[in-house]
Amino acid sequence: MRAVAMRDKKLVVVDSFPDPVPQQGEVLVRTLACGICGSDLHALKHAERLVANSKEAGAPFVMDLARDIVMGHEFCAEVLDYGPNTPKRLPTGTQVCSIPMLARGVRIETVGYSNDFPGGYGERMILNDALLLPVPNGLSAEHAALTEPMAVGLHAVLKANLGSNDAPLVVGCGPVGLAVIAALKLRGIGPIIAADFSPMRRKLAERLGADQLVDPRAGSAYAELATAAAGRSAVIFECVGVPGMLQEILRGAPIGARVVVVGVCMEDDLIRPMLAISKEIALQFVLGYLPNEFADTLTAIADGKIDVAALITGRVGLDRVPWAFEELGKPDAHAKILVAPARA
Amino acid sequence: MRAVAMRDKKLVVVDSFPDPVPQQGEVLVRTLACGICGSDLHALKHAERLVANSKEAGAPFVMDLARDIVMGHEFCAEVLDYGPNTPKRLPTGTQVCSIPMLARGVRIETVGYSNDFPGGYGERMILNDALLLPVPNGLSAEHAALTEPMAVGLHAVLKANLGSNDAPLVVGCGPVGLAVIAALKLRGIGPIIAADFSPMRRKLAERLGADQLVDPRAGSAYAELATAAAGRSAVIFECVGVPGMLQEILRGAPIGARVVVVGVCMEDDLIRPMLAISKEIALQFVLGYLPNEFADTLTAIADGKIDVAALITGRVGLDRVPWAFEELGKPDAHAKILVAPARA
Repeated sequence: MRAVAMRDKKLVVVDSFPDPVPQQGEVLVRTLACGICGSDLHALKHAERLVANSKEAGAPFVMDLARDIVMGHEFCAEVLDYGPNTPKRLPTGTQVCSIPMLARGVRIETVGYSNDFPGGYGERMILNDALLLPVPNGLSAEHAALTEPMAVGLHAVLKANLGSNDAPLVVGCGPVGLAVIAALKLRGIGPIIAADFSPMRRKLAERLGADQLVDPRAGSAYAELATAAAGRSAVIFECVGVPGMLQEILRGAPIGARVVVVGVCMEDDLIRPMLAISKEIALQFVLGYLPNEFADTLTAIADGKIDVAALITGRVGLDRVPWAFEELGKPDAHAKILVAPARA
Repeated sequence: MRAVAMRDKKLVVVDSFPDPVPQQGEVLVRTLACGICGSDLHALKHAERLVANSKEAGAPFVMDLARDIVMGHEFCAEVLDYGPNTPKRLPTGTQVCSIPMLARGVRIETVGYSNDFPGGYGERMILNDALLLPVPNGLSAEHAALTEPMAVGLHAVLKANLGSNDAPLVVGCGPVGLAVIAALKLRGIGPIIAADFSPMRRKLAERLGADQLVDPRAGSAYAELATAAAGRSAVIFECVGVPGMLQEILRGAPIGARVVVVGVCMEDDLIRPMLAISKEIALQFVLGYLPNEFADTLTAIADGKIDVAALITGRVGLDRVPWAFEELGKPDAHAKILVAPARA
C-alpha cells in the first residue's frame, strides 16, 4: 500500500509499504480521512525525546526510531475485511471510528505511533473489532475523523469536574483549545473566555462557542478571568504546550485557580513553585480520553452538537503530507488539515 | 525590648528594639516560646527572592529589607496589656496562641515577616484581640507554640480531601513532613509511608504515626507506595521544598497520583511536563492554614492527640538564635528549636 512513513526522523512518501494483515479479532480497514495532529509535528521534531520520555514513564510500548512508523491517529475508515475466526459484526463498507489503540495478545500499542500497526497516513490499517464504532446519522468521514481530537477536549473538561460556579479560561485556540471550548459549550459551562494571538483562531473559537475573545497583544486574559471569576472559581485550560506557558499561567492565575494542562509540552519547563504555593494553585495534567468519552464525542458530532466543519482548513493526499506538516507550523494558516490517502 | 532582628539580610541580637504599642483591638503580649521555622531559614538565605516573589504574587504586604524585621511566627505568648478602648476579654497573664496575622485598618501583615509588627524572636509582640485563642487544658507554652507548624500539616491533609481509599506517602520528615504525618494519623488515614535520609527524622516520623519508614538510600518509597496503592489512590506529600523534588516525584509517582506540595521551594524549578501528562498527575500546591484548622490543631495538641513533645530538640534564648539557625541547617541534628526570649 501507499503510506507516509517517519523514516530516520523525516517524513517520506512510500509507494510499497507492506499491507497490514488482520489476525483474529482484528479488522482490515481502508483509511477515508485522517487529521494531522500537533502531536505528530511534535513527535517528528522531538522523536528521540518522545521515546526517552515514554521509556521513563514506563509506557507499555515504545517506538523504535530505526524502523518506519506510519503516523495518523485521528481517523475514519471503512471496513474491508476481517481477520480469521472473527464474526463479521459490521458489513463490509461500514464507516467506522476507533480509539487509536490496538491490543494483540499481551501487546497494546497506539495506532499511529507504532512500528507494526500503521496509522491513517497509510491506505490501510488494522483495528480491533471490539473497539469499532459505526459512524451514525450518515455523518461524513471527514467530520467523523474529528472525533479523536474533540474527545481530548471532552476528557479535559470532565477531568476538571466543572460546575455552574466555575469560570473557564482557555489559553490557546489551536485544535486542542478549540476542542476544550466545544466541550465546555456541550456541557453548558460558561461564559467561556478564550485567548490566542491569531485572529483566525479567535474566529474559530467564537464559532465553536467562546463568549469572550482576547488578543494577548491587546489585553490580559487573566484580568478578564479575574473579573469573570469574582465570587466563582477560576479554571484555566492550558492548550498551548510550549515551555514557559505554565509559568505564565502561574503568574496570571487568580488565587485558588485550578489549571488543567491539556497542551502537550515535550520539553523540560521551568516553573517558580512559590507562585503556585502562594496562590494554592492546583495543576491537573491530562492525556487522551476514556473510550466512553470518545464514543460520546462521536455521538455529539453526529447529533450536530459540535460544529466541526469550521475546523477543517485543508485537505491533502499522501503526496502533500510533508507540505501540510510545514503549513501547520504557521499558527495563522490552519486549524486541521485532513489527509485522504485515496486523494490524488 | 530585646529582639533578634534580620538586618541587612543577617541575624543580629538587638538590646534596644522599640517596644511595639497596641492600638484599639490589639493586645500587647510577652513571648513565652517561639519555634524556628524552616521558612525563616529560607527567608534569611533568599530574602531578595522572597520579596520579589511576594511582589509578583500580588501579596497584600511586602517586607522592606532596608528596615529591620523581627521574625518568629510559631509562638505562644502571655497577655500583658490591651490597646485603648479594647475590652479586656482575657485576664492579664492568660497564655494565648494566634495565627500570625495582624490586621490594622486596611493593612494586613504577617507577624514575623513585617517591618512594624515584630514576631516571636522579640520579647514582646502585638496581636489582634479577635484572633487570640486561650491555651486550654494547662498545656505548656512550649507545646502550644507548636500549633502553628502542626496546623500546616492539617491544612495540607484537609486540602487533599482524603478518604479511606487513599494511600499516603510523605516525602521528607522535617517539621513539615512530621506535621503532615501527625495530621494523617489524626484523621485516621493510613497506613502512612514516610521517607527521609535521616535516621533521627525517621524515628520522629514513627513516633508521630508513620507506619512504614523508608531510607531512600536503601529502598524506593515509590515502589512501596505502588504496592500500598494497589486498588487504591496514591497521594504523595512533598515536604522537602528544594529544586528537583517535584521532578523526582513526577518520575516516581504511580499513574493517576495526586501530589500535595507542602514544602516551600523558593527557587525556580525544572520539571518535565510529559511525565506528569503521561500519568495524568494532579499537583495541589498549599500554603498555611485556615483559622479553624489552626484552632482545631491547638485543641488536638491540648487533648493529647498530637504528640508534639518529641519534636522539641533544642531550646535557646535570644543570644543563641543565630547559632540555632546554623544548627537547623544540619538535617540530622534537630527537628524544632524553641526560642524563649526570657531565657538567659
